[in-house]
Amino acid sequence: MSAIDDLVAELSRLPTIGRKSAMRLTYHLLKQPPEQSKRLAAALDTLTDRIRKCERCHNLTEEPLCIPCADARRDQALICVVEEAADIAAIERTGEYRGVFHVLGGRLAPLDGVGPDDLAVASLVARVKGGGVREVIVATNPKLEGEATALYVQEQLTGLPVTVSRIARGLPVGGDLEYADGVTIAQAIAARRAMT
Amino acid sequence: MSAIDDLVAELSRLPTIGRKSAMRLTYHLLKQPPEQSKRLAAALDTLTDRIRKCERCHNLTEEPLCIPCADARRDQALICVVEEAADIAAIERTGEYRGVFHVLGGRLAPLDGVGPDDLAVASLVARVKGGGVREVIVATNPKLEGEATALYVQEQLTGLPVTVSRIARGLPVGGDLEYADGVTIAQAIAARRAMT
Repeated sequence: MSAIDDLVAELSRLPTIGRKSAMRLTYHLLKQPPEQSKRLAAALDTLTDRIRKCERCHNLTEEPLCIPCADARRDQALICVVEEAADIAAIERTGEYRGVFHVLGGRLAPLDGVGPDDLAVASLVARVKGGGVREVIVATNPKLEGEATALYVQEQLTGLPVTVSRIARGLPVGGDLEYADGVTIAQAIAARRAMT
Repeated sequence: MSAIDDLVAELSRLPTIGRKSAMRLTYHLLKQPPEQSKRLAAALDTLTDRIRKCERCHNLTEEPLCIPCADARRDQALICVVEEAADIAAIERTGEYRGVFHVLGGRLAPLDGVGPDDLAVASLVARVKGGGVREVIVATNPKLEGEATALYVQEQLTGLPVTVSRIARGLPVGGDLEYADGVTIAQAIAARRAMT
């Protein structure tokens, strides 16, 4: 039954899905109409073909510019800096943020070999130097590595004519922005404070 | 970002995967090499094309007969009756059962509209009437509906020259055979008792 084994093996590669979960999902799909597996296969197949990085902010997008960057009604002078594109989805779900974004692509983690050059900080500095940016909100996760990353971003922006702020500790320390509820994220953005 | 939304929607259809898990899996795949999504897509795409039901026992297979049914070294006179094909995988993992199987395709559940005609009992009776069957082990799940199904199977086999046995209550009552550990399943099979 290698078609089953193949799918179980591929599903087991995903985070939080162990071998038993992979088997349960596979047998579940075998009990559904074949169209369901086909639709899931098609969605996976086109995912990496269609998704690329926004030229300006590195958010995930299907166009040269992502939706917030291409939206003239949004405040392009307000940039929210996040670790990952998934964090943007979390912030967008609150429906309360009207600025744009910048995705660093990670956080400083020397033990994992992630240094300053691995993060998209230079392109953030270039955006600010390009003018028209009033404020940068650093919304890295409120953990040790996220705080270190926030300080590094602040340092790199020092001396430029821009306000640098940090989202408030409304988020539980040690938590993940990606999994926070909308109200908490919205409050954290509303109560942001200047980084001095 | 509809390619992302598409995949999140399809993943969310799966049991135990909510919207947040679907998003986390999607963003995880976007951080992996595209080949990983492609392999998972291919495995899903071929699953329902290649998998069919065994002509003899209704197990899932890629050939006319499933692996146990086609294996002359196995005891074809000993049939273990299970609710679902997934249960066979659980029993096979124990490595201790040397007979063959019969998949009912469910259990009696009047409230869900599953009656005797929805289960593959007639084909089981035909197998026994065809001769060469020494014993039928009824390994439906040790729950109310599984017990009712076991009694129904036993009734249908009454009068035929075959021993009908039930797996021992080594399985915790209320549990799922599919998720039991191998030792428990093996003990339950070893301690099976005749249904009188």
